[in-house]
Amino acid sequence: MESTNGTATGRAVTLRDVARLAGVSVATASKALNGKQQVRAETRARVVQAAEQLSFSPNTLAQGLITQRSGTVGLLTSDLEGRFSIPILMGAEDAFGSDQTSVFLCDARGDTIRERHHLRALLSRRVDGLIVVGARPDTRPSLGRNLPVPVVYAYSPSDDPADLSLVTDNVDGGRLAVDHLIRCGRRRIAHITGDPGYSAAQDRARGAQARLAEAGLELAGGEVWFGMWSEAWGRGATRLLLDRCPDVDAIFAGSDEIARGVLDVLHEAGRDVPSQVAVIGYDNWTILAANARPPLTTVDMNLEELGRIAAQRLFAAIGGTLGTGVETVPGRLITRESTAPLG
Amino acid sequence: MESTNGTATGRAVTLRDVARLAGVSVATASKALNGKQQVRAETRARVVQAAEQLSFSPNTLAQGLITQRSGTVGLLTSDLEGRFSIPILMGAEDAFGSDQTSVFLCDARGDTIRERHHLRALLSRRVDGLIVVGARPDTRPSLGRNLPVPVVYAYSPSDDPADLSLVTDNVDGGRLAVDHLIRCGRRRIAHITGDPGYSAAQDRARGAQARLAEAGLELAGGEVWFGMWSEAWGRGATRLLLDRCPDVDAIFAGSDEIARGVLDVLHEAGRDVPSQVAVIGYDNWTILAANARPPLTTVDMNLEELGRIAAQRLFAAIGGTLGTGVETVPGRLITRESTAPLG
Repeated sequence: MESTNGTATGRAVTLRDVARLAGVSVATASKALNGKQQVRAETRARVVQAAEQLSFSPNTLAQGLITQRSGTVGLLTSDLEGRFSIPILMGAEDAFGSDQTSVFLCDARGDTIRERHHLRALLSRRVDGLIVVGARPDTRPSLGRNLPVPVVYAYSPSDDPADLSLVTDNVDGGRLAVDHLIRCGRRRIAHITGDPGYSAAQDRARGAQARLAEAGLELAGGEVWFGMWSEAWGRGATRLLLDRCPDVDAIFAGSDEIARGVLDVLHEAGRDVPSQVAVIGYDNWTILAANARPPLTTVDMNLEELGRIAAQRLFAAIGGTLGTGVETVPGRLITRESTAPLG
Repeated sequence: MESTNGTATGRAVTLRDVARLAGVSVATASKALNGKQQVRAETRARVVQAAEQLSFSPNTLAQGLITQRSGTVGLLTSDLEGRFSIPILMGAEDAFGSDQTSVFLCDARGDTIRERHHLRALLSRRVDGLIVVGARPDTRPSLGRNLPVPVVYAYSPSDDPADLSLVTDNVDGGRLAVDHLIRCGRRRIAHITGDPGYSAAQDRARGAQARLAEAGLELAGGEVWFGMWSEAWGRGATRLLLDRCPDVDAIFAGSDEIARGVLDVLHEAGRDVPSQVAVIGYDNWTILAANARPPLTTVDMNLEELGRIAAQRLFAAIGGTLGTGVETVPGRLITRESTAPLG
């Protein structure tokens, strides 16, 4: 039988002792004693009784919580511009509660040695968990299975299926974009996108083509226009497209940068947007999308939501278990003025 | 006389003991024992002798350094997009040495309560120092004089003259931009800029006007066109400007965003850039400047350099003293294709 009086051993009673006596996880014991809503009344009563039995005082409780949770989470990123990692950081902080957890961001710049150094620094500061954010949605090496804290991979999935990864759903995003254009009555839809070496480019194109096929349509121009993630490619590809397929009535651009180039050349060619050609981008990078002329309809990857889910998974894993595999987070359509029903 | 055998007291010898015996600061003792170049040979010899005298072994040395320095610096930011803070973070890491110091970024989102919470979290992790980065180059409240570690304010200066602040030199930046246009042979130079409530807008305009005055020139259109930090304002102001002052031969835009709007309307009006009108932006925000048509000449604020200097000041302050007042970091001209000498 479990000892019911931790103090008799001369060792301070910890939350772990309370949890063991109550027959619950440490996370549940913590939630119960902190008055969180997720715990059933019956469970809470058992935990409180165990705490009393062990003379687990509020003061000891505070100390116990401190030893259980440091209130900090590390965010290891390789995203130089902070474009993807800042919204993920903000979402994670919102989920943890800004007054309870600080998220520390470290930038590894895609360098393995730097990443290892930051990892050691974060672990030596006893973070409660780690979120690893990649610069692109392609598989990255796992940090390994022997870390003392739970790790969630965000944006770039880990190559180890035993890890938990959260990624944006690019196939569904491509489908969303084309679905919107079809609902606007467009039938001659082209797709201009970035580097074919990125899974994001392949996945968005796959989703777009699947939705076209369901409507019995084919891509205008007969193929996906793969190229680069740049405005210049958006301009160049649009010139080629207008030449090959002058009656195109909608263009799905694989990024907002590309969409800016597309808009530029459509203006140059005297095509009205959206009445003659509808344009939709991807990313909802506000500086580019909201300032476009006309303001750009686009697909938002919901990175803040991804950050919130990462935080929830880490929180659940503290004292419990972390899931494995790849979870996808769907994007959402942001409608602005560059798309509209055919008149 | 100082005891020369710390171990006799039963207490572990620390770097502080070595420094005291050698008659140098802790920072100097640390540099001397780590083989850094900044220490004179004579000083180094004295420190090494003191270390030997106290049996300060390499192992004790490592422990001593750990108690002196944690190898982490906190970067508290309120810059939601990470636009200013990420390059400052990168510059600071470069100066510290990426394998020796990790910079932890926390985002306070301009919220005082959140900032206080992150500050406590960073201090409880025993960071060696703090860099506080604001979202705009206007004065911000000091974190106070009683912090246990040195603090450097970057981008936004502290309102307490006893603090050390590093800011970009916007007056000089405005001067740089106009100087370049004058060297390109331009005489009818207009200035379209952002919100007049920002010191950045006022300072850049002041520098521009000072340089014009030196050349015996006045602003084309007779005034600074203050408005908003947006492409839409760049477009609107350029239409007004072309109407009032059709022979303008150069436009200095107060940001790259504004410059994008300026370029857009010049194209629309059939003005060639740069042969008829030269355009220069501010910020060197690559996504906007390098992708513009033509690629945009602009002023770079040297934020990485600012981060490096902040790191050096913090490093010097550990075991020493931190300066006070406001230091300005000059910007530099990035020449691309939107400016050229008059043909």
